[in-house]
Amino acid sequence: MQYFTDTEKFIDLREVNRAIEAAFADHGRGHVQMPPKIYITLPEGDFRTMPASLPSLSLTGVKVVNVHPGNPARGLPTVMALIIILDIATGMPVAIINATKLTDMRTGAAGAIAAKYLSPKKEIVLGLIGTGRQAEAQYRAISRELEICEIKCWSRNSLHAEKFAREIKDYTARSVPVEKACDCDVLVTTTPSREPVVMNEWVHDGTHINAIGADAPGKQELDPLLLRRGQVFVDDIAQAAHSGEINVPLKRGIFTPEEIAGTIGEVVIGMKRRERPDQITIFDSTGLAIQDLAIAAIAMRKGTVIDLPFP
Amino acid sequence: MQYFTDTEKFIDLREVNRAIEAAFADHGRGHVQMPPKIYITLPEGDFRTMPASLPSLSLTGVKVVNVHPGNPARGLPTVMALIIILDIATGMPVAIINATKLTDMRTGAAGAIAAKYLSPKKEIVLGLIGTGRQAEAQYRAISRELEICEIKCWSRNSLHAEKFAREIKDYTARSVPVEKACDCDVLVTTTPSREPVVMNEWVHDGTHINAIGADAPGKQELDPLLLRRGQVFVDDIAQAAHSGEINVPLKRGIFTPEEIAGTIGEVVIGMKRRERPDQITIFDSTGLAIQDLAIAAIAMRKGTVIDLPFP
Repeated sequence: MQYFTDTEKFIDLREVNRAIEAAFADHGRGHVQMPPKIYITLPEGDFRTMPASLPSLSLTGVKVVNVHPGNPARGLPTVMALIIILDIATGMPVAIINATKLTDMRTGAAGAIAAKYLSPKKEIVLGLIGTGRQAEAQYRAISRELEICEIKCWSRNSLHAEKFAREIKDYTARSVPVEKACDCDVLVTTTPSREPVVMNEWVHDGTHINAIGADAPGKQELDPLLLRRGQVFVDDIAQAAHSGEINVPLKRGIFTPEEIAGTIGEVVIGMKRRERPDQITIFDSTGLAIQDLAIAAIAMRKGTVIDLPFP
Repeated sequence: MQYFTDTEKFIDLREVNRAIEAAFADHGRGHVQMPPKIYITLPEGDFRTMPASLPSLSLTGVKVVNVHPGNPARGLPTVMALIIILDIATGMPVAIINATKLTDMRTGAAGAIAAKYLSPKKEIVLGLIGTGRQAEAQYRAISRELEICEIKCWSRNSLHAEKFAREIKDYTARSVPVEKACDCDVLVTTTPSREPVVMNEWVHDGTHINAIGADAPGKQELDPLLLRRGQVFVDDIAQAAHSGEINVPLKRGIFTPEEIAGTIGEVVIGMKRRERPDQITIFDSTGLAIQDLAIAAIAMRKGTVIDLPFP
């Protein structure tokens, strides 16, 4: 059994995007096993267990990942993760992967694939609502699929947004009021909000939105009117209904499962698509265990390896 | 983060029994979080993911365990396991434990606690149906709670049963026909059978049965008439209904959830009990994630430790 760490330092983001795209395609074809992630509540956060099998890569395993918003004050990341990979023939654990940064990357890649297939424009103004680690992962991954002309960002903490914009060297980037950030071609929301932060009237026709932040029951970032107005694609129907952007509107009865336009996997394999250029499309990302397996396959070829005795 | 291996070599079985008893008590009082284990099917077996939280020990984490019946032919154990322990305050992974042998031990301890509370006799003739690793774990753990006068064992492979009996040094032990093995005070079944191997008429009144083998849908070891005749206690109602001894009879409608006498946790805290000395009691064990956390707490004080970089 091997422990892998620092793997993310050597990973090519284009390669990650291709791996996530292929995993979504497998999901769209029904060629994966992936029960909805399971939540355990802890005093100051939670952790999620995400088992899956991805036969196209002969890969099976499970990710264990926490979410603790108070961690940065203790000098620890909010989200930390391990991936355990089992040998698909014998079930023996063969790899344990430090997956904290891989989790950021595979989520960024999901946004990039959604934007690739659903944005009607290939040269885009990118709007970022929320300017944390995932905002960075999103723009980096999207930049491998679309031409970013400009980045407009907003955070509840304007100093943080300004710092974030200053640190972006490859693109014109600036901190703007929230409604200005929403005036863009591809909008990415990565906040932990429990109330809508993006209002319907701020978003123009033809925009594609990656709704990334909502990943637990009770979280939401978008005005529910946007869901009714646009086509909503999810990564996985069961997970999105439980903990994605649509979870609160579903519980309140202002959005129904029948209104889901399809999964991103169905989009990748061509079964579902954006209907018109002037429509709004929304990708509701909750994060799939098969994304973790897909990036694990890349990670296990890189980084520092420590051999561990097993069995 | 630390990797622990060889921990089982230094563990006292009485200490394990007490830890499992305490975990069952927490379960009986509803003081744990433990969603039912999740199964992923693999080409030649399966693996199960078992997350839980045990607040009384400030412990949370997840066990990952496979079942591959063809593994011994490849020189590998049928069952292999890891336990991941997270810091309950921050969600950070702090320990990875080689839990293959710990899994045997904590299952043995569950049988020991059930026999302690449910066997009307304290000096017993022990019957073992199945003579693999778990049969050994059961008699060793039970010996810490009850006085074993004699062991009668049976396996489908009589050579294996004879070898098993010969290797038991501390007790009078012999290989006998199956119906003779069932003529005992505490009967333990540890086979992977999908058809009943223990017939109702072979079991006399007052026997306590640990039904250990059935741990996946479709598996069963006991004549369903025994379930109707006895008091059936389970470790966890949801798990037992899905994959325990009662799963097949439930699906066939010859046993109903209302007929479950209670959980072993309710027995440990005194809420439920054997009704009469001459009754048959059955403990349907599926294996709880909280048992793994309980033995992990002991294991992390023993064995070989390797430090791993994280986060």
